[in-house]
Amino acid sequence: MSAALINRRDLAFQLYEVLDCEALCERQHFAEHSREQFDAILDTAERMATDLFAPHNREADEHEPQFDGKRVTMIPQVKVALDAFCEAGFIAATHTSDRGGMQLPQTVAQSAFAIFDAANVGTMAYAFLTIGNSNLIASFGSETQKQRYLPNLLCGRYFGTMALTEPQAGSGLADVRTRAIPQDDGSYRLVGTKIFISGGDHELSENIVHLVLARIDGAPAGTRGISLFIVPKFRVNEDGSLGARNDVKLAGLIHKMGYRGTTSTILSFGDDGDCHAELIGEANRGLAQMFHMMNEARIGVGLGAVMLGYAGYLHSLAYARERRQGRPPTAKDPNTPPVALTEHADIRRMLLAQKAYVEGGLALCLYAARLVDEQRTGTEQMAAEAGLLLDLLTPVVKSWPSQWCLEANNLAIQIHGGYGYTRDYPVEQCYRDNRLNPIHEGTHGIQSLDLLGRKLWLQGGAPLHLLQSRIATTVAEARASGDTQLAEHAAALEVALGDVARTLAVLGPALQNDVELALANSAVFLEAFGHVVMAWIWLRQAVAAQGADPTGADERFYQGKLAAARWFFHWELPKTAPQFALLRSLDRSCLDMRDDWF
Amino acid sequence: MSAALINRRDLAFQLYEVLDCEALCERQHFAEHSREQFDAILDTAERMATDLFAPHNREADEHEPQFDGKRVTMIPQVKVALDAFCEAGFIAATHTSDRGGMQLPQTVAQSAFAIFDAANVGTMAYAFLTIGNSNLIASFGSETQKQRYLPNLLCGRYFGTMALTEPQAGSGLADVRTRAIPQDDGSYRLVGTKIFISGGDHELSENIVHLVLARIDGAPAGTRGISLFIVPKFRVNEDGSLGARNDVKLAGLIHKMGYRGTTSTILSFGDDGDCHAELIGEANRGLAQMFHMMNEARIGVGLGAVMLGYAGYLHSLAYARERRQGRPPTAKDPNTPPVALTEHADIRRMLLAQKAYVEGGLALCLYAARLVDEQRTGTEQMAAEAGLLLDLLTPVVKSWPSQWCLEANNLAIQIHGGYGYTRDYPVEQCYRDNRLNPIHEGTHGIQSLDLLGRKLWLQGGAPLHLLQSRIATTVAEARASGDTQLAEHAAALEVALGDVARTLAVLGPALQNDVELALANSAVFLEAFGHVVMAWIWLRQAVAAQGADPTGADERFYQGKLAAARWFFHWELPKTAPQFALLRSLDRSCLDMRDDWF
Repeated sequence: MSAALINRRDLAFQLYEVLDCEALCERQHFAEHSREQFDAILDTAERMATDLFAPHNREADEHEPQFDGKRVTMIPQVKVALDAFCEAGFIAATHTSDRGGMQLPQTVAQSAFAIFDAANVGTMAYAFLTIGNSNLIASFGSETQKQRYLPNLLCGRYFGTMALTEPQAGSGLADVRTRAIPQDDGSYRLVGTKIFISGGDHELSENIVHLVLARIDGAPAGTRGISLFIVPKFRVNEDGSLGARNDVKLAGLIHKMGYRGTTSTILSFGDDGDCHAELIGEANRGLAQMFHMMNEARIGVGLGAVMLGYAGYLHSLAYARERRQGRPPTAKDPNTPPVALTEHADIRRMLLAQKAYVEGGLALCLYAARLVDEQRTGTEQMAAEAGLLLDLLTPVVKSWPSQWCLEANNLAIQIHGGYGYTRDYPVEQCYRDNRLNPIHEGTHGIQSLDLLGRKLWLQGGAPLHLLQSRIATTVAEARASGDTQLAEHAAALEVALGDVARTLAVLGPALQNDVELALANSAVFLEAFGHVVMAWIWLRQAVAAQGADPTGADERFYQGKLAAARWFFHWELPKTAPQFALLRSLDRSCLDMRDDWF
Repeated sequence: MSAALINRRDLAFQLYEVLDCEALCERQHFAEHSREQFDAILDTAERMATDLFAPHNREADEHEPQFDGKRVTMIPQVKVALDAFCEAGFIAATHTSDRGGMQLPQTVAQSAFAIFDAANVGTMAYAFLTIGNSNLIASFGSETQKQRYLPNLLCGRYFGTMALTEPQAGSGLADVRTRAIPQDDGSYRLVGTKIFISGGDHELSENIVHLVLARIDGAPAGTRGISLFIVPKFRVNEDGSLGARNDVKLAGLIHKMGYRGTTSTILSFGDDGDCHAELIGEANRGLAQMFHMMNEARIGVGLGAVMLGYAGYLHSLAYARERRQGRPPTAKDPNTPPVALTEHADIRRMLLAQKAYVEGGLALCLYAARLVDEQRTGTEQMAAEAGLLLDLLTPVVKSWPSQWCLEANNLAIQIHGGYGYTRDYPVEQCYRDNRLNPIHEGTHGIQSLDLLGRKLWLQGGAPLHLLQSRIATTVAEARASGDTQLAEHAAALEVALGDVARTLAVLGPALQNDVELALANSAVFLEAFGHVVMAWIWLRQAVAAQGADPTGADERFYQGKLAAARWFFHWELPKTAPQFALLRSLDRSCLDMRDDWF
């Protein structure tokens, strides 16, 4: 049951051999840090995740939060774990030291968060939302707002939420209709209902800071008329003490298939006409601000999906090594003892697939986190380039792990056989928890429209050109390695990149001529493009593994990396060829289907 | 919430326009029947499923059976529903009238069962197991056994189980070690433990008849030494009255992710050395007998997976038609009202995929049921051919719906967005329930080995040759229709069939030379072959739809069939090309991977 949460050797490989995070310490912003410190922080995260988060993961699933009409209660271990998390300074991990933060690189902070995710996403979600909330206030809040909220958020006295979705609108944020009514004193009163607000009510913290999308009376229709507001559960007095209960009511808890430890709420703002709200940033810029923060949140969602996949992978690997069952096709003598499951090629298929999905997903998400570090602390050009790449890759970072690390969980169950379907083994919960990820923070469909309809064409296609040149660098490195296998992978990746280009040469003009047709199959583009990106991510890892000069356990680790890369190139990348062909055919099946033909 | 359980128009299309079930009534065995009677029986099934099965589907999930150490209790609606099911004669649906059965064709009986599955698989499972059990006793039992058990099973006084799996052996039935100790009177005493026995204990019936695989003392090792036994919960006296409690103990209930209404049990046989058992059929032939019955059980599993997919499809279709959200890319004016979800191409993609999976799955399973009818009541040649086709198709019938109708459930959740992830909507339960199907009655891996390692090569490849000729007939019909689209589908199917042949031309010799290598990627073969079979199944439907001369609603129905067929040919069949290429390359990734590289 108690498999490791992550392969620390893999994490070290990503941080130091692929992403060269030690180089970050040469920058002034991270000058106080060293690899030893990074590792000590990851050790702390692993210890706390193992001791405080993992042990109540199943119990929190079985005993979800309850609402008695007044208070939300939950098993006490959640608060114990989160208090320790806050106490250790993890909420403020990336904030500057002058605010009491650790001033860690995103790459390292996300690595630490990843370990907590693997232990217990349901509990970690409260922290995750508070971190996102604090980042947004740090980016867009006024000085007064920062002073009022940030210290309390960063130490965990206040927790945060993001309140975007409304019952009638779902993904259609243009139709947000929560009203913000301006007051003479410059504040606002809010009236409206939000749904699926994770962490929307609880007794884990003294206060809850909701960041709420709403429409100021008279604002334009659609997304250009949405503003962002701070709405605390308890008002905060000038002196920083807690004031009266604000007019935010818990209208109900939502009961989910998984992720049950996290309250999911319906919140009613201003039922009594007295919901105090503060505008944050400029009026009517709320969505842009929220999305600014959501780029990081989406890395977090992708990473959460990865780590559920990772946890399931390690559980199923441990099970497959221990369980003795059946015999290989060449050893049919029933008097011989059964062999370990790992002796069966089909089990190794399911383990290799999981390894490729979860280690690849981790590499992808940490690469994106590294780009955030480039954006924040790199030279101007590095920052600009990192921004372009992040724009392009964020839909993939959010969606790819949500799809494929869920599939990893599916395979982890399958390896366990009937046992995997029971609640006595942890993999079924991973599968249920992970099913949320393709939905929240922008569904697959929304991500695919963002990628194909917008991101690819920013600045005349600059993000894609930049990605192509980065990929070309890796391809050249693979060839320079002199390794035949890597050269074959490099050639396959070039073919796939050519497929992307040929496909966009069709879709680009189509977007001008018939936008509905061009976007009709956007989900397929997201999937195929994601696989090409992941082939690159695997080639980067293979180059690093090939270039190492290892012995002993390290040699086996690198062999595993090369085997997983090979698996991805032989088993996964070829799936994209028919996808790109379908896209180039501008297939009209979905477009032409009529409602009354179903 | 209360969408229909099945599209009856689709079911009628399958039964009468694709499978020509009316022709069965011309056979003596079914001479008492007519289409009107079939429909009346399906009406009854739909009414009972709607009134008695569907209403407690969620409640049975939320309140799973409990064991207080003595008795297993569950919500009372389960027994009410099953009593009505038995009372209506459905357990005996396919049994002969001299046994009190309805003497229905399998095709019609399975259609009726399918409707109950869509309403509530958890409750239906008790009936399903009893039906399988009764079929096996009818096929292999002695006259005494038939007299003793069959009438009680067929009227529902007794329920049945199939007890194959042991905790240490899982899928590895060769390692079954439950002992059968011969007694002087010709009976046996059993000692052993079975796990994952669905319906293994409950108070729904007066008695439970377990069919148990065990090894008679001194029998050969492996699968050739396994015999099948009848082990009743209560012994049955000579006069047919219930005797003493047999030595079969419920060692525990298993708590599952889904399918929670069905008890899953650990059963302990002979703890007190007094578990009475009767051998059924010949000694050491137990596995063959069980598999004989499992062909039908596997159609049932496939159909169960289909119907969970079907239920989810209809729920998500109803939701997508009702829910108004977002705007198409060409209508960005936020002042226009939001449109129905079905207006979005990406939603139609997810509906079309579901339609293709579930209607295709239904067509596949009913085709297989029709083959069972051919086998039982056709001419000698028809029966022989049907047997060959069933051998070949059973792994696909069991596995394809388990994989793709689970994917349909995944899409049904996605269409619902956040709502789909909550327990307030039925689709999340469909998804959890359906996850069982790739595991039980032979996992995907087991099915793929059965197909590639055995079924394809029976009688010198006769099953595949026969399938090829059946497909050639459909291809010719498609061409003869004069429809361009159908001719294109036919050409694509021929290419795919060629891919199968070219792949087997590589795998066949490999099986002789290096069986481990040849079977290493069998799961991919099962998937690719399954898709080719399904392309044929869709072409059959398209030919029938194209040939019809409809008006009004019927015209829309046929357009929908043609659109789904087209979707399958454009979106799904092309996925097989890289799969067959991978298989032909005899890729060694899984074979060469080493345990210590993970």
